[in-house]
Amino acid sequence: MIAVIGARKCDQQVYDIAFQAGQELARKGYIIICGGLGGVMEAACKGAKSAGGRTVGILPGIDPADANPFVDIPIATGLGAGRNLIIIHTARAVLAIDGSYGTLSELAFALQLNKPVVGLATWDVSEKIVPALSPQEAVEQISRLIGSI
Amino acid sequence: MIAVIGARKCDQQVYDIAFQAGQELARKGYIIICGGLGGVMEAACKGAKSAGGRTVGILPGIDPADANPFVDIPIATGLGAGRNLIIIHTARAVLAIDGSYGTLSELAFALQLNKPVVGLATWDVSEKIVPALSPQEAVEQISRLIGSI
Amino acid sequence: MIAVIGARKCDQQVYDIAFQAGQELARKGYIIICGGLGGVMEAACKGAKSAGGRTVGILPGIDPADANPFVDIPIATGLGAGRNLIIIHTARAVLAIDGSYGTLSELAFALQLNKPVVGLATWDVSEKIVPALSPQEAVEQISRLIGSI
Amino acid sequence: MIAVIGARKCDQQVYDIAFQAGQELARKGYIIICGGLGGVMEAACKGAKSAGGRTVGILPGIDPADANPFVDIPIATGLGAGRNLIIIHTARAVLAIDGSYGTLSELAFALQLNKPVVGLATWDVSEKIVPALSPQEAVEQISRLIGSI
Repeated sequence: MIAVIGARKCDQQVYDIAFQAGQELARKGYIIICGGLGGVMEAACKGAKSAGGRTVGILPGIDPADANPFVDIPIATGLGAGRNLIIIHTARAVLAIDGSYGTLSELAFALQLNKPVVGLATWDVSEKIVPALSPQEAVEQISRLIGSI
Repeated sequence: MIAVIGARKCDQQVYDIAFQAGQELARKGYIIICGGLGGVMEAACKGAKSAGGRTVGILPGIDPADANPFVDIPIATGLGAGRNLIIIHTARAVLAIDGSYGTLSELAFALQLNKPVVGLATWDVSEKIVPALSPQEAVEQISRLIGSI
Repeated sequence: MIAVIGARKCDQQVYDIAFQAGQELARKGYIIICGGLGGVMEAACKGAKSAGGRTVGILPGIDPADANPFVDIPIATGLGAGRNLIIIHTARAVLAIDGSYGTLSELAFALQLNKPVVGLATWDVSEKIVPALSPQEAVEQISRLIGSI
Repeated sequence: MIAVIGARKCDQQVYDIAFQAGQELARKGYIIICGGLGGVMEAACKGAKSAGGRTVGILPGIDPADANPFVDIPIATGLGAGRNLIIIHTARAVLAIDGSYGTLSELAFALQLNKPVVGLATWDVSEKIVPALSPQEAVEQISRLIGSI
C-alpha cells in the first residue's frame, strides 16, 4: 500500500496531478491508502479506480459514508487528524502532493518513522523527501525506493 | 463490512465456528473487518478467503506484517486495544463469537453506538445482543438486521 | 491516580454515592481521574474538590471547556469513546459506579489490562471485580488492593 | 495550560533554554503540558517545578512511570506519536523549542487547529509561528497572544 497525502481542497492542476499519480500507482499494482476525503485524496482514488486499482480511505470521522465515492474500503476511525498517523504506519511509502498543515503533519510522521517519501510540489522540510517533477517520475521513484511488487 | 470479534486464542471448536461464519459472510457478499490477529480473527478471515471473500484487519501495532495471512488489507493503527473502536465504527453490524475481555470492550462499544450485534456463545451482557446457535443462523440474523446487500 | 468510571447521566442516589467516593478518595490522598463529563464523573470530582483533592478529566472532545466545573486538569483527546482506554492506562486502580455501556467498555479494558477493579452496583461481568457495598468500603478495598500512598 | 514541544534529546544549550521557558511560564501561573519524556520536555518541567509550577505529561506509552521525574500528572495514552495531537488540543498556546520531526508534527497540528504558536529556534514552516529570541520574550509573546490569566 502506498499513501497519497495532500489537502482536501485543491485547484484543478493539483487535482489532475493527483489523478495521474493514482492511475500510475494502480497500474504498477499498488493499493492506494489515503485520508478518504476530497481534493488530492479523491483525485488519487479516482485515478486508481480508472486504472482498475484498489483504494483504502482512513477517515477522521465515525461514518464510513464520509468517504469520497472512489474509496473501496472506508475505515471510520473517529480520531480526527489523529488518523493521519494510521495512514503512515500502514503505508510502505508516501507520496505527498502539494498540501497544507494536515499534509505537513503526515510528512512529519513519515519522516519520524523513516518511511520513504516522494514529494510533488509539497513542503520542503527535509532532504529525506525525494523530489519529483511529474506523477510518472514520482511513481517511478516510489517503485525504486521500495522495490517493485 | 461486518465485524467479526472474538479472542486471539481459541479452541478448535470455536475456530471452526468462526471459520464457517467467515465463509458464510463472504458467500453473502460481505467484507469481513476484524482485529487482524489470530484465533477467531484468523479463522473468520480464512473462512472468508476460502469462499472468495475479502478481509480487512485493524491491527493494534504499527507493523502491517503482524496480520494473519488471510487478511487482504492490514491497517496498522498503533493504538493497542484502542483499535477496537475503529472496528466498531467501520462495521455495519457485529458478529461476536466467544471471546474474552477484549471482545467485551468491543461488544460494549457496539452497544453504546447502537450497532446491530449478533452473538454466538459470547458475553451475555445485553438483551440487545441477538443470540444465534450456529454460524449459518448468525449470518442470517445479520442479513436480516441490516438488510441484504 | 484512581479512575472513577460511571455514566454521564445518573439518578440522585448514584450521584450521592459517587460524590462520597470522590470525597473519600481525596481524603486518602488519591488524585481522581475520570472522563471529565457529567453524572458519576462530575459527582466524583465535586466530592474530591470538597475534600481538597485534585481531579483530572480525560475528555472525548477537542475542547477543554467541555469538562465539568470540578475538573482541575482537563485533557482534550479528540478520541471520542477511545479516550476510555487512556483513563484505564493511567489509573492504578478503577472504581466503577453503576454505569452503562461506556462504563462496560472501561471495565472490559481494566480487566484486560489486569488493573484492580472495585465495583459499586455496577456490571457483574467478572469475579475479578471486587464488590463493595458503600463508598467507604469501596475506597478501603482500593487502598488494600494497591497499598496505601 | 501551555504546551512546550521539542525533541526528547537535546544539547545543553537547548536544555537551558527550555528550563528557563518552563520557569518563566510557571511564574506567570501557567500549567505546562508536554510529551512527558526527556530533553526539552524534561527541561521545561524541571524549570516549572523550580518555580513552584505544575506540569502535565502526555505519554506515548501505557505506563505512567515513563514520565520524567518533574511531571506531576502523567497521562499514559498508549497512542505512540498520536499523543502529540492531545497535547495540542489541550493547550491554549504552544511554545516550540528547537525540535525534530516529532516536534514538526506537533507544530503542523497546532497550525492546522489555529492555536497560537511561538517558536524559539524551531522549524520555520509558517509565518503564523511568532518568533522569539529568548525564553523570556517567548513567554511574553504567549501571554500577549492569549491574554494574561
